[in-house]
Amino acid sequence: MLEHAYGYDDVAIVPGEFTINPELADTKFKINELEFDLPILASAMDAVVSPSFAVDFSKKGGLGVLNLEGIYTKYEDYSEVLESIISSEPDKSTSIMQQVYNQEISVDLIAKRVQEIKSNNAVCAVSITPANTKRLSPIAIEAGADVIVVQSTVTTPRHFSRSITGLNMTELKKQIKVPLIVGNCVSYNVALEFMHTGVDGILVGVGPGAACTTREVTGLGVPQVTATLDCSRARDSYFEETGRYVSIITDGGIRTGGDFCKSFTSGADAVMIGTPLAQTLEAPGSGYNWGMATADRSLPRGTRVSVGTKWNLETLLNGPSSTSDGTQNFMGALKNCMGFVGAYSIRDMHKAKMIIAPSIKTEGKFFQLGK
Amino acid sequence: MLEHAYGYDDVAIVPGEFTINPELADTKFKINELEFDLPILASAMDAVVSPSFAVDFSKKGGLGVLNLEGIYTKYEDYSEVLESIISSEPDKSTSIMQQVYNQEISVDLIAKRVQEIKSNNAVCAVSITPANTKRLSPIAIEAGADVIVVQSTVTTPRHFSRSITGLNMTELKKQIKVPLIVGNCVSYNVALEFMHTGVDGILVGVGPGAACTTREVTGLGVPQVTATLDCSRARDSYFEETGRYVSIITDGGIRTGGDFCKSFTSGADAVMIGTPLAQTLEAPGSGYNWGMATADRSLPRGTRVSVGTKWNLETLLNGPSSTSDGTQNFMGALKNCMGFVGAYSIRDMHKAKMIIAPSIKTEGKFFQLGK
Amino acid sequence: MLEHAYGYDDVAIVPGEFTINPELADTKFKINELEFDLPILASAMDAVVSPSFAVDFSKKGGLGVLNLEGIYTKYEDYSEVLESIISSEPDKSTSIMQQVYNQEISVDLIAKRVQEIKSNNAVCAVSITPANTKRLSPIAIEAGADVIVVQSTVTTPRHFSRSITGLNMTELKKQIKVPLIVGNCVSYNVALEFMHTGVDGILVGVGPGAACTTREVTGLGVPQVTATLDCSRARDSYFEETGRYVSIITDGGIRTGGDFCKSFTSGADAVMIGTPLAQTLEAPGSGYNWGMATADRSLPRGTRVSVGTKWNLETLLNGPSSTSDGTQNFMGALKNCMGFVGAYSIRDMHKAKMIIAPSIKTEGKFFQLGK
Amino acid sequence: MLEHAYGYDDVAIVPGEFTINPELADTKFKINELEFDLPILASAMDAVVSPSFAVDFSKKGGLGVLNLEGIYTKYEDYSEVLESIISSEPDKSTSIMQQVYNQEISVDLIAKRVQEIKSNNAVCAVSITPANTKRLSPIAIEAGADVIVVQSTVTTPRHFSRSITGLNMTELKKQIKVPLIVGNCVSYNVALEFMHTGVDGILVGVGPGAACTTREVTGLGVPQVTATLDCSRARDSYFEETGRYVSIITDGGIRTGGDFCKSFTSGADAVMIGTPLAQTLEAPGSGYNWGMATADRSLPRGTRVSVGTKWNLETLLNGPSSTSDGTQNFMGALKNCMGFVGAYSIRDMHKAKMIIAPSIKTEGKFFQLGK
Repeated sequence: MLEHAYGYDDVAIVPGEFTINPELADTKFKINELEFDLPILASAMDAVVSPSFAVDFSKKGGLGVLNLEGIYTKYEDYSEVLESIISSEPDKSTSIMQQVYNQEISVDLIAKRVQEIKSNNAVCAVSITPANTKRLSPIAIEAGADVIVVQSTVTTPRHFSRSITGLNMTELKKQIKVPLIVGNCVSYNVALEFMHTGVDGILVGVGPGAACTTREVTGLGVPQVTATLDCSRARDSYFEETGRYVSIITDGGIRTGGDFCKSFTSGADAVMIGTPLAQTLEAPGSGYNWGMATADRSLPRGTRVSVGTKWNLETLLNGPSSTSDGTQNFMGALKNCMGFVGAYSIRDMHKAKMIIAPSIKTEGKFFQLGK
Repeated sequence: MLEHAYGYDDVAIVPGEFTINPELADTKFKINELEFDLPILASAMDAVVSPSFAVDFSKKGGLGVLNLEGIYTKYEDYSEVLESIISSEPDKSTSIMQQVYNQEISVDLIAKRVQEIKSNNAVCAVSITPANTKRLSPIAIEAGADVIVVQSTVTTPRHFSRSITGLNMTELKKQIKVPLIVGNCVSYNVALEFMHTGVDGILVGVGPGAACTTREVTGLGVPQVTATLDCSRARDSYFEETGRYVSIITDGGIRTGGDFCKSFTSGADAVMIGTPLAQTLEAPGSGYNWGMATADRSLPRGTRVSVGTKWNLETLLNGPSSTSDGTQNFMGALKNCMGFVGAYSIRDMHKAKMIIAPSIKTEGKFFQLGK
Repeated sequence: MLEHAYGYDDVAIVPGEFTINPELADTKFKINELEFDLPILASAMDAVVSPSFAVDFSKKGGLGVLNLEGIYTKYEDYSEVLESIISSEPDKSTSIMQQVYNQEISVDLIAKRVQEIKSNNAVCAVSITPANTKRLSPIAIEAGADVIVVQSTVTTPRHFSRSITGLNMTELKKQIKVPLIVGNCVSYNVALEFMHTGVDGILVGVGPGAACTTREVTGLGVPQVTATLDCSRARDSYFEETGRYVSIITDGGIRTGGDFCKSFTSGADAVMIGTPLAQTLEAPGSGYNWGMATADRSLPRGTRVSVGTKWNLETLLNGPSSTSDGTQNFMGALKNCMGFVGAYSIRDMHKAKMIIAPSIKTEGKFFQLGK
Repeated sequence: MLEHAYGYDDVAIVPGEFTINPELADTKFKINELEFDLPILASAMDAVVSPSFAVDFSKKGGLGVLNLEGIYTKYEDYSEVLESIISSEPDKSTSIMQQVYNQEISVDLIAKRVQEIKSNNAVCAVSITPANTKRLSPIAIEAGADVIVVQSTVTTPRHFSRSITGLNMTELKKQIKVPLIVGNCVSYNVALEFMHTGVDGILVGVGPGAACTTREVTGLGVPQVTATLDCSRARDSYFEETGRYVSIITDGGIRTGGDFCKSFTSGADAVMIGTPLAQTLEAPGSGYNWGMATADRSLPRGTRVSVGTKWNLETLLNGPSSTSDGTQNFMGALKNCMGFVGAYSIRDMHKAKMIIAPSIKTEGKFFQLGK
């Protein structure tokens, strides 16, 4: 009666029938006319993407998404605000965040932050919740934003409220000229319905991120491999039907190169990552991360996570790696994996075989790792 | 040959195809003519429901169930008795309880406790075991009890013993005018047979509570999601056949808002909770909880659990929440969840999709929560 | 391709459609003309059954099985030998046992031990390995043994060796007049083939005991619920075909009343237990237990286990229980369970429903047991 | 949609319908004309097989495989190089290895190491990566190597790179006269395609070894039981079609006698082991082990593991065993297991039944092992 769903730790990738040299693997990601060397979006989290991080990340070839409803658009001088969250006692952090985020968004700061990014020749993507999209997206686009991301914990094409004036994605898509990404969703039907509204990309994932406790609080959640497989099937059906290719961007729960590779074999065209980026020296969170729902005024669905500051962005993305636990050189891992499964492109990766094979912990009784 | 059964930790709720604003979610619970704002019954456990707790809980909109065979009807001055259990050494607690509970029930105290609750304008529900129902229920009803709960570890409509005079539920239902809830049961057939006797509500669950060790002691137990799904199917069949709607109240094992939400997507109309209420400042257990079978004279099937005193009833039920682990603001969690799955009512929640997706523990190797 | 198998921790018992009072539950066990109040055999392990333990256990209504190839038949004064094993250092215990057991069996001591048991009006069962059965069983029977148990890690009706003279069970059964129990086996076909040789009881189980490491050493093992279900189906087929009822005795892995109850719902007519008995004050092991294969000269497949001395035999078997973890009052647990599933007899228990429902560990994050 | 895959800890072996005495079990392994008493190859890891270890292991009846691209062919005096790795700090070990292995292979040392082994009357097998096979295999063969092993993390018969000149296994097989083993692979199709190229043996396994972190880093991995079952089916199909028998050698993840036995019931003709051999007194790693990919210059996929120095080779292989956890006397375990399942030969072992039965951890709450 109930179907099984699977996450990264539940599956493994099976090597292909032929192999290729990693040098032959093409990892590019396209959304409409925009092309990125790295198939990676940086999460719209205040501890991950600041204006300067967005610039750094764009120069590496990825796409950073700035949260338009957080610290950067609420406070002119955001560094001391970040500091107040970072330095708070563990048991106070949620209530301090509730207070910090209880501040109005400044329209002027939206324009300012977008221009800060654009003036550095970086691609600028911004994230807005559905309720604020009609009001804030024109401001961001006018200031130069290249990509609009409409994002909340769960987003569907049909949202009902007393005010009745829900966001109409089809209309929005007609009004704005830049690529539009929406999310998050986790199922075939919702993804398909979104594609029919004309959106360019879909964020997949409810509940799996490290800083997210939606599942404990509300019971909601779909493990990331199953969610990505389902939404990717919708993309393939829609592509077959219409000839238009809508990107699937899987969002949440990636901690290692292994998880990163499994995203693509699950059908993703790109991934959105938060915590691994929050661990870099360039991230504004100084070794901490938290989700936007952490600051919800009456029902926080996230938590501040101590992630540590580990290495720089280059090491995370391109190595070289000096550890062997998969936390460095994500792109090297991807290219090697593509070699092992014989995938020349990300789309080839979608055809790779996966199996259900829970991770094995052999350490302990018989020997000790890394000693 | 053997079927799989699932509990709260094994499943997750899938977001719906449309969403609604939480303000549109109606969470009311009805049993016959009685209507409650909260779909929550407080467990008939001595550490959870005292007469004064029943009053507090009724005022919040829920229904507290007073155990008619425990400390409150055995001792005039029950506070020192509670204290003797609470202050006992861990390894002595079971034998101290065996001694405390080895005392006769006072008929006078039954009437007195019911009146204490009623005189405060609260709805009064009382719990009696099947063996004592014929004798004690008239006393409770005469004193003003609004709901009778007939409850033991496992209850079926047909119980055989040497004395032959088992409780006939059909006859009992004819004699008493107030709503009758019976339990606990866990299967389609037993739930259906109970409905045919005319009962108004059914308690579902054997073995899952935190203070319950029935499964370790006797091997008996059915995980709560499967038990609730099965008994709810019986309710739906019976409703289709007769037009009468019998409430399914799932009882045991709920610790978080997530578990609470999953109860309703499993088919429950209301839940009975113990341990989360025992953790409130208003509870008589002062940070401890135990089940009635803990005091069994020769085969204890429960244990005293140290649950801590955490916050007040209002915070547990309606927040605001300052933690993000799902232990506060159960009603906020439910309304948000109903929004995410597009459920206007509890009955809509019954149609939400669930998947099998064991909880993931990501903490530890890669980062630390709440630090 | 591969089938799933289940053990005690993987399953739970579902309550029945009607219930009975525990006083109505008949737990008797019969093997041919011998009838026992308790459906329990004490394992043929030197730390469990000494001659005096066999007498104590028989008086309680069970059947103790004396190992005829261990300390009691190798040493006239066995107490100091037991002491040398018990007091050995953990890392020396296996090699000390290898030395102690490397001693010839004394035919005189066999007769003497049997007579010690019989002279106390106890039922006497003895265990012999297949290789020694032809030589030692006549001695034991002449001395008065009531039941012969032919037992080794894995026993089949067809064993091939260079010497060719394997034990022919059909012939053996013709020669001896007392009931014959053989084991261990775990599958339908082997159990059925054994029944056709005329044996009276079959021991079921390879690998699950607490003092057994056969699975780690050789990879062999079948979880106890599946093994018992399979062999019980053979018993039922054979009974239908021939009208003769051969007892299925499940052996190994029982630690709690819950496990004990699940043995019967898996199809067992009786159980053989070791470790819970080794924990009693009456046991010769003084808080330790070990299997016979622990002393194998080149490939030990067992280990000395520190089990502690917990309570007396009466508390283990009939309570009253002062703990709530299922480790006391096994018979009370069984009778209560039979009440909950509506079983008047052990054979009724065979029809009870079980489900796959892994044990839940809720302790820790939310509350603490027994504190 | 996704298939389940299983590893050693997930399965157990079911006893057979008849049994044999272990003395009747024939464990020989043949590859072409070469016959070995032990069905065991020692892994081509620098911490496992040095020239002198290869000699010792050959004398015991097994086949040691010397890595031709490691320390022994890069350094004339390799002992101090080993020492520098072994004595490095845990967090430095990967980068020290990256440095040590960044050294050219000496063609002279290849010949020298082969001659060292051959001059001691040992069988000599050497391992080369596909990229170096054409260049280095003639040198090794001319120096006297008896077996060529072409091995990398994942090897397929078709590898594509910019240079186009991939290794053609069919041609290679025609040129060299000694037996050729290739690997690693994990699937039916790749194994079958390799067999059609004429190779004599196939190494099975990606990801499971103790010193291997390929799965964490790249997501790749297939649990060993499933991989071996699949490749063995290919061998059986190919044998049926052509009459030529290609050996399946399972490689990785074996820690106990139980794992070792399960390899054969999964279909293996022989096994390759690393860590258990690295734990012997004869091993060059002095209590450490590491895989070749640990030293990858930009993406290490392995780690230095502290395995301890436990006992000598004889104890590991033939006992006698003084422990009971399956870590000693692998051959004794295999012969006993063959007895229990009634297998006269390794090929009989392929027909033994296995079940899915996750390992049980009973220790802790109820008793303590080995105390």
